[in-house]
Amino acid sequence: MLDKKYLTLKESVKLLLDYIEFRCLSFEIVSIESAYNRITYEDILAPENLPGFKRSTVDGFAVRSQDTFGAKETMPVYLTVKGHIPMGVAPDFSLNPGEAASIGTGGMLPEGADAVVMIEHVNVVSSDLIEILKPIGPGENVIFEDEDIKEGELVIPKGHKLKPQDIGALAGLGISQIKVVKKPVIAIILTGDEIIPYTEKVTPGKIRDINSFTLAGLIDLAGGIPLKMGIVKDDYKELKAIVNKAYELADIILITGGTSAGIKDMTAQIINELGEPGIIFHGVSIKPGKPIIAGVCNNKPVFGLPGHPVAVYICFELFVKPVINKMLGLTDKTYKPKVKAKLTKSISSQAGRRDFIRVYLEEKEGELLATPLLSKSGLIMTLVKANGILCIPEDLLGFEKDEIVEVELL
Amino acid sequence: MLDKKYLTLKESVKLLLDYIEFRCLSFEIVSIESAYNRITYEDILAPENLPGFKRSTVDGFAVRSQDTFGAKETMPVYLTVKGHIPMGVAPDFSLNPGEAASIGTGGMLPEGADAVVMIEHVNVVSSDLIEILKPIGPGENVIFEDEDIKEGELVIPKGHKLKPQDIGALAGLGISQIKVVKKPVIAIILTGDEIIPYTEKVTPGKIRDINSFTLAGLIDLAGGIPLKMGIVKDDYKELKAIVNKAYELADIILITGGTSAGIKDMTAQIINELGEPGIIFHGVSIKPGKPIIAGVCNNKPVFGLPGHPVAVYICFELFVKPVINKMLGLTDKTYKPKVKAKLTKSISSQAGRRDFIRVYLEEKEGELLATPLLSKSGLIMTLVKANGILCIPEDLLGFEKDEIVEVELL
Repeated sequence: MLDKKYLTLKESVKLLLDYIEFRCLSFEIVSIESAYNRITYEDILAPENLPGFKRSTVDGFAVRSQDTFGAKETMPVYLTVKGHIPMGVAPDFSLNPGEAASIGTGGMLPEGADAVVMIEHVNVVSSDLIEILKPIGPGENVIFEDEDIKEGELVIPKGHKLKPQDIGALAGLGISQIKVVKKPVIAIILTGDEIIPYTEKVTPGKIRDINSFTLAGLIDLAGGIPLKMGIVKDDYKELKAIVNKAYELADIILITGGTSAGIKDMTAQIINELGEPGIIFHGVSIKPGKPIIAGVCNNKPVFGLPGHPVAVYICFELFVKPVINKMLGLTDKTYKPKVKAKLTKSISSQAGRRDFIRVYLEEKEGELLATPLLSKSGLIMTLVKANGILCIPEDLLGFEKDEIVEVELL
Repeated sequence: MLDKKYLTLKESVKLLLDYIEFRCLSFEIVSIESAYNRITYEDILAPENLPGFKRSTVDGFAVRSQDTFGAKETMPVYLTVKGHIPMGVAPDFSLNPGEAASIGTGGMLPEGADAVVMIEHVNVVSSDLIEILKPIGPGENVIFEDEDIKEGELVIPKGHKLKPQDIGALAGLGISQIKVVKKPVIAIILTGDEIIPYTEKVTPGKIRDINSFTLAGLIDLAGGIPLKMGIVKDDYKELKAIVNKAYELADIILITGGTSAGIKDMTAQIINELGEPGIIFHGVSIKPGKPIIAGVCNNKPVFGLPGHPVAVYICFELFVKPVINKMLGLTDKTYKPKVKAKLTKSISSQAGRRDFIRVYLEEKEGELLATPLLSKSGLIMTLVKANGILCIPEDLLGFEKDEIVEVELL
């Protein structure tokens, strides 16, 4: 019983992404202190060498390496200690043949020196004489002036999400401001006569807004700025007005609940009226999330997300996040964190449909177990209790109890 | 050649954590909008049922299930349509035997109804008469009033890091403010006569601050608040004054570069003078990061981190983060995201020592390859280029080229 009416997940995502221009968002200039987790807008090249001078990586004695050639425990080489190199200053002397200078980790080598003998490998005979017991090669225990980063070299490529150590490297190069991709503003419109703000008391038939809170958190994690547009009644004029406003203010528009019976046709019509080409697809062969609507209106992605809390989550991860990543121009290869676990219950699916099952991962006697949290998809608690998602692909009818499955971490 | 002088990683972390009191940080009350990624301070129980009323999960007709028993395609059951239930209101009628009511997804069932027949399984004969073609069980296509969350039930346990869907569930329950664990303030003190602020021009022998930027980002990701205390010269009095100040302001103190020759004894002395018990260990059998100092002074953890950028990163992840997690009272089981990859070069280690090798993961012809980025540990660029960390445990002498290894994602 193949679900032939609908696109597969892969087909639908490809179709949608083909309409999205890579790195279509503009840039802004920010200080590196504000650049953590932001996406670089252009390649960042090194304005200078790092460290910029020959630097010792150990505590010991800077030497001319050729002076040490032939040194043995039985026949040490004697070197005159010319002085001590304080940290943070250029030595005011250079080394002539037969001379050494004491130096700390991070200290600058004097002119003439090309290696540092570790303190442990030296016999200090007197304050100005040391014995070297074995030879040392040129460059040993030294970082050369352009060894960490060379002037003009690529430090961070464009389209990279900046990690703490990246910001560290930029600081080390004295780069204080950089161009990053602007965060996309993502409008959240809630539809449904039954939805009330979370601050209101429920009366029979009403349900508080859950989805704008889940979505706001997901948008933030994905590098966007959530813009809550409020709750709209199932009314064409009202919905159209707020979608038009969102279109002015936001880069992406999410309409939740816009796929249910009362409002489905309305949402579809409004997306088609908003701009070309309008709706790209309506319905995908997945569960939950099947009734999703995706459109692009004059280059702005517009989604009609199912109202069920779990479907909202899944649809965001499957459709909205890849769109955000492409708009941001993210080029990092990302690997979804997965673990292997043993299934505690059999679960079945429908051929031709991709199912996403919430599971609870638990270690018992050294074994990782995955328990499917099966329930009606309208329930938020299965998603709260879950710490993993198991995918049943289109070509399988399910998994057996005790089968080892790959679970994506939530 | 076992590295017998030093503790193993496991021994040192255990020793340190034994001095840290679980959930020793205080709480603060925040709105749920500000609670994303925060750690719950106490169990959160449901103040009411969710959804709070019998709710349809499909578009169709609310019925009394027993009325449909015995229905067949050849002998349908006829029901009178009593009316339509608008979304978001309690129906103003109840169902008597032989009656049905049209309802949308999310609508409230009328008194008497206990199931909803999907629109697809109904023949609409006229505006007030429908044919039911097969029986439906009680509760089918219905979420009961306490089925998502029951009043008094545990919604979120204490010690949990709040995800977007958790905040969604809290909103659904009308919970607007919660107790979360206070973020630990973590002081960063940079030591070294050679260190200058990143805004200054380098002169020979000087090097700009890299570590405070890497650490600030790592602290933020770990749920703490970085407090930059500036750069201190290698001077006992100056360092002591700033450590004392940090002790007043912060929950954890990080002194970077405090393990190098010039300042090592000074740092150790100051930690021991700061409070009881003082230094817990000095040096661990790992690479990089071996000279790390960890102390606890009147319940405040104080670290002397090596000055090398890579060692700082590794030591933070291995020692500081578990301390933060214990102070926050985090109880979530976390699984470090790992991938399996094929090593492109052999790498060797020393028995008894745990090595952390930066690697670059790359997919080639469907195979994931890990290339070790071997270099002197003073270099920040290996960490910038790396997207994975490979650990060589104490009992191995390394890995062979083409071996399949487990790489932790960076």
